[in-house]
Amino acid sequence: MTAPSDRALVPFVSVAQMMSLIGRIGLKPMLRGLADEIEADFRRWEMFDKTPRVASHSDIGVIELMPTSDGESYGFKYVNGHPGNTHQGLQTVTAFGLLADVATGYPILLSEMTLLTALRTAATSALAAKYLAPRDARCMAIIGNGAQAEFQAMAFQTLCGITEIRLYDIDPAATRKCAENLRNQGLSLVLCATAEEAVQGAQIITTCTADKQYATILTDNMVGAGVHLNAVGGDCPGKTELHRDILLRSSIFVEYPPQTRIEGEIQALEADHPVTELWQVVAGRAEGRRDPAGITLFDSVGFAIEDFSALRYVLNQVRAGAECDLLDMLADPDDPRDLFGMLLRAGAV
Amino acid sequence: MTAPSDRALVPFVSVAQMMSLIGRIGLKPMLRGLADEIEADFRRWEMFDKTPRVASHSDIGVIELMPTSDGESYGFKYVNGHPGNTHQGLQTVTAFGLLADVATGYPILLSEMTLLTALRTAATSALAAKYLAPRDARCMAIIGNGAQAEFQAMAFQTLCGITEIRLYDIDPAATRKCAENLRNQGLSLVLCATAEEAVQGAQIITTCTADKQYATILTDNMVGAGVHLNAVGGDCPGKTELHRDILLRSSIFVEYPPQTRIEGEIQALEADHPVTELWQVVAGRAEGRRDPAGITLFDSVGFAIEDFSALRYVLNQVRAGAECDLLDMLADPDDPRDLFGMLLRAGAV
Repeated sequence: MTAPSDRALVPFVSVAQMMSLIGRIGLKPMLRGLADEIEADFRRWEMFDKTPRVASHSDIGVIELMPTSDGESYGFKYVNGHPGNTHQGLQTVTAFGLLADVATGYPILLSEMTLLTALRTAATSALAAKYLAPRDARCMAIIGNGAQAEFQAMAFQTLCGITEIRLYDIDPAATRKCAENLRNQGLSLVLCATAEEAVQGAQIITTCTADKQYATILTDNMVGAGVHLNAVGGDCPGKTELHRDILLRSSIFVEYPPQTRIEGEIQALEADHPVTELWQVVAGRAEGRRDPAGITLFDSVGFAIEDFSALRYVLNQVRAGAECDLLDMLADPDDPRDLFGMLLRAGAV
Repeated sequence: MTAPSDRALVPFVSVAQMMSLIGRIGLKPMLRGLADEIEADFRRWEMFDKTPRVASHSDIGVIELMPTSDGESYGFKYVNGHPGNTHQGLQTVTAFGLLADVATGYPILLSEMTLLTALRTAATSALAAKYLAPRDARCMAIIGNGAQAEFQAMAFQTLCGITEIRLYDIDPAATRKCAENLRNQGLSLVLCATAEEAVQGAQIITTCTADKQYATILTDNMVGAGVHLNAVGGDCPGKTELHRDILLRSSIFVEYPPQTRIEGEIQALEADHPVTELWQVVAGRAEGRRDPAGITLFDSVGFAIEDFSALRYVLNQVRAGAECDLLDMLADPDDPRDLFGMLLRAGAV
């Protein structure tokens, strides 16, 4: 049997290799690098093929495919969301992704994306806040202290200058885990016993809860003037985190309206309720925060272009020498029409 | 850094391992096994989540995602179609696929599918012919002698008792390649100089051409009474192989109408032109061939359930000991909420 040609081998970045990459680059520079890639792609948003993700729902979770293309590269992510998984010791969200060459259709990168999604979600939130949060924001509340919480804290520290984090979770063990993980990162940490306590003095409130059954994390009276809301956890039909009255008082910014109207906080509103697309703010075509006393809401559900940006960041690292495996994933006979002959010569027929 | 847990490791069947598997099982038994799996899933068609594939078109090709689920397992295939690839020594079609557990969203198999798609496409064609072709069919014409041709010949020999194959391609080198590959397989082979010559005496006509520019492979006068047409190559918008007049004389069988109306031969007909779903014939709910003198047409475009069946076949082989690699693809911290802690403990933060 002859060895597969270079064309047939697809670079694969494993979980261990992604951890090495984060360690080598440093989490903060990597969050900054990812935010830069996402920002650059938001600026050229109109060049992308866009479609709401393709979701397969079951009673206990969802499996989604999130494709996009800029005409040169094609990318997609596989991602699940199973809030009950933690009870079995499994991740709520796992993911992997792929980039391919549009000109040939050949894959050029396969990568773990459980870690990468955590980073890109936090980078996107912080990018949005750069345009939407009050300029002098230094204190952020994080409600929901699961797998995403520390990444949010680090991204807002790195990109927005947040110095104080106020933590709350219905499970105090999650809050302790989060505080322990963040203790040497130069952040002032306040562990709170209630969500009401957590939002005291916070100019930014991040909600990143996972469970469908706690559908109203913030009520109207908890959100005062001049606050930026970063709603990360409401991301599928029937799952929201904010009371509807808060939405009615907010300037709402979204990634891709056709998807957010199905999955985001705004599923609680009329289908024609005005929203602003975040890319337009990034591209200078729409205003972000207008009024220091206003409430801004980034109704984040995660969009395919953010994953595309993150995968391209990883591909650039691989091309610059980052460690990866090479997967024998594509059959590649010498004569492309001779797939059967390849089997014959391998002794398989 | 601790080793990933079993949960994090996804079995991966490479191209070399797929060739070994085909060699160990034997191509004919494997075609039969795949056809059995596909037939079993066609019988329970209504249990599946079905959606037309998600296509990303460019000027020179298409990249598609084909998801489906039976409520227990979820599967999808990535596949491209780039007719111009052969000019660069690349495959027109490459593919890989994945199965996941619906209950957790965790992937359970990643597999090459360039070879597997070639096998499942041929197995599906032969399965359809079992229900649609004349009972005494022994002679098949194959027009288009590219990568799919030999697999069609072997599947029809194995599943339908075809003994004579008449080959034609606009490129005589392709026909010679095909005949050379099939020469020790117990088939009588006739190399033809024209499509008209190839269809002489054939009870089954298989068209499997790849290039968009030769849009009418068969004209009306070439198709006589009692013939079964197996149209494999017309499978994307703007790409068909049969003259419209043939369609008007045929009983048309399709996989999944919402997809076939976009991609198949029937894109040339009115949107309400009557067609029969193949699964209904397999399940005994609709008639297949009614009249020995009639023309039947399997307007095949390939559907996600066929890939799902093929992936399950491979998963069963892996579970029975077939060779595979284990990919460290899913981040899996001890405490599922502690993704950040996994990075910390790995020294990555």
